[in-house]
Amino acid sequence: MPHTTPGVLGWDIGGANVKAVRLDGRPGQPPALHSRSTPFEIQRDPEALVPTLRRLAAALEAGGGPHAVTMTAELSQAFRTKREGVGAVLDAVEAAFPGADVGVYTVGGRFVTPAVARSIPLEVAASNWAATARLVARFVPDCLLIDIGTTSTDIIPIAGGEMAAQGRTDPERLASGELVYTGALRTPCEAVASEVSVGRARCAVSAEGFALMGDVYLWTGRLSPEDYTVRAPDGRPGTREFAGERLARVVCADREMLDDEAIGRIADALSEAQTGTVVAAIGRVRARHPG
Amino acid sequence: MPHTTPGVLGWDIGGANVKAVRLDGRPGQPPALHSRSTPFEIQRDPEALVPTLRRLAAALEAGGGPHAVTMTAELSQAFRTKREGVGAVLDAVEAAFPGADVGVYTVGGRFVTPAVARSIPLEVAASNWAATARLVARFVPDCLLIDIGTTSTDIIPIAGGEMAAQGRTDPERLASGELVYTGALRTPCEAVASEVSVGRARCAVSAEGFALMGDVYLWTGRLSPEDYTVRAPDGRPGTREFAGERLARVVCADREMLDDEAIGRIADALSEAQTGTVVAAIGRVRARHPG
Repeated sequence: MPHTTPGVLGWDIGGANVKAVRLDGRPGQPPALHSRSTPFEIQRDPEALVPTLRRLAAALEAGGGPHAVTMTAELSQAFRTKREGVGAVLDAVEAAFPGADVGVYTVGGRFVTPAVARSIPLEVAASNWAATARLVARFVPDCLLIDIGTTSTDIIPIAGGEMAAQGRTDPERLASGELVYTGALRTPCEAVASEVSVGRARCAVSAEGFALMGDVYLWTGRLSPEDYTVRAPDGRPGTREFAGERLARVVCADREMLDDEAIGRIADALSEAQTGTVVAAIGRVRARHPG
Repeated sequence: MPHTTPGVLGWDIGGANVKAVRLDGRPGQPPALHSRSTPFEIQRDPEALVPTLRRLAAALEAGGGPHAVTMTAELSQAFRTKREGVGAVLDAVEAAFPGADVGVYTVGGRFVTPAVARSIPLEVAASNWAATARLVARFVPDCLLIDIGTTSTDIIPIAGGEMAAQGRTDPERLASGELVYTGALRTPCEAVASEVSVGRARCAVSAEGFALMGDVYLWTGRLSPEDYTVRAPDGRPGTREFAGERLARVVCADREMLDDEAIGRIADALSEAQTGTVVAAIGRVRARHPG
């Protein structure tokens, strides 16, 4: 596709996934979008961020256009503070694209230079939800934006065409119910429920990270193996069969002890518990924005 | 210390720690005991079990005496089933001590040969609590045995000099309240509480394994750094300072955002929640054994 000016490259640099989009303006038409996403656990190999950014940019055939950056990777335990994390992420962006025009998005909705961003780490940390919310607000002026990701869930009120969230930082948002640290793939099962049903009994769960919510949804058929984009806890394939083995370990059992029906009950209990947690948070956020 | 017959070597081969004791009978006196324990995460390196066993035996200056084995390592996700895990652990014991006399303890209280043990994996899996309980029962015929370890807690009723547990396998014990999968060191904080206090607000917790209950007790001073025998989630030292950084991440914050008082409130909330879980399980077990 021909384009005369180099497109803008948008980044969401997370602790578990890095996402990039190339946006090309076309006179008289909506912009053309091309996106790529790659699993990338920054805590396993922080040094690999620079080549990961370059690889995604190359895959999008990005030219020398400007970069717009949001991040959540600064929360990774690879960094002692958000300040250090923001600095490291911006170091990687600047090393990957030397001399490029880089704008870093703030929770308040501005783009700032990397130098400014480094001086206000709490304003550029975890700002991706605010970007999504402001974009949605342009099209749907009154709504509740619910974004359930692999790891966490955003519940953002939009009122009168404005993003109307109560919390700005991650801790404020965890307190307000606007951020729920539960997702459809990476969340360990013991973070979702402390008990599940096994046969007729309620059974407490183990706490070893034996299974993820992605295993629950592999089992129930709501997640396909291609979308199980993390390393499984046991290192085995992201398939329904192995998900069943991982779910058996949630109650310290194995597939010689538990049949398909028993695994299904465990999966259902975890799925219902997770849904209940998200529903409760939606209720809290809605209660502040009646009507 | 001189001894004429080679002592018995007792083993508890867990998924996170391997413990060994040498017991030497002395005519007319209580037996002499020498013990060693070493952190050993079997899922990280199953092949290392053989040299670990040999190293502990050498440290205890064990001779060619018999071996008495209990295990919990069979639950590790290194193995697809308990049967496979029991087999692998016994393979390691037999490789470490070729030709030795090995007795494997069953939950029912017998010692069986490795060959028999391999054929009844559910009876030799996770039998260590039953050994402890039967020993305690000899000295305290009516009591509740409470053993809070790094990873899990056993609550075993002993009545009329007999071990009186309702559950035998791990899943049965999780259902009966006799096994609570919560411990003083390795348990991730999000498995203990879904909310903590931050300032005046209740705040939901993250689910990334950012902090362990060992960090809570490092912070409150109830665990000393020498006893923080696991790799910390962030790979940094097991000290109060770094425990504070890990606890800040429980609410997606950092030490620039949260002062000592705020960290203390998070630690207290988690400690109270864990205590509450254990107390509730004690109540359930006691209710079945009134008086």
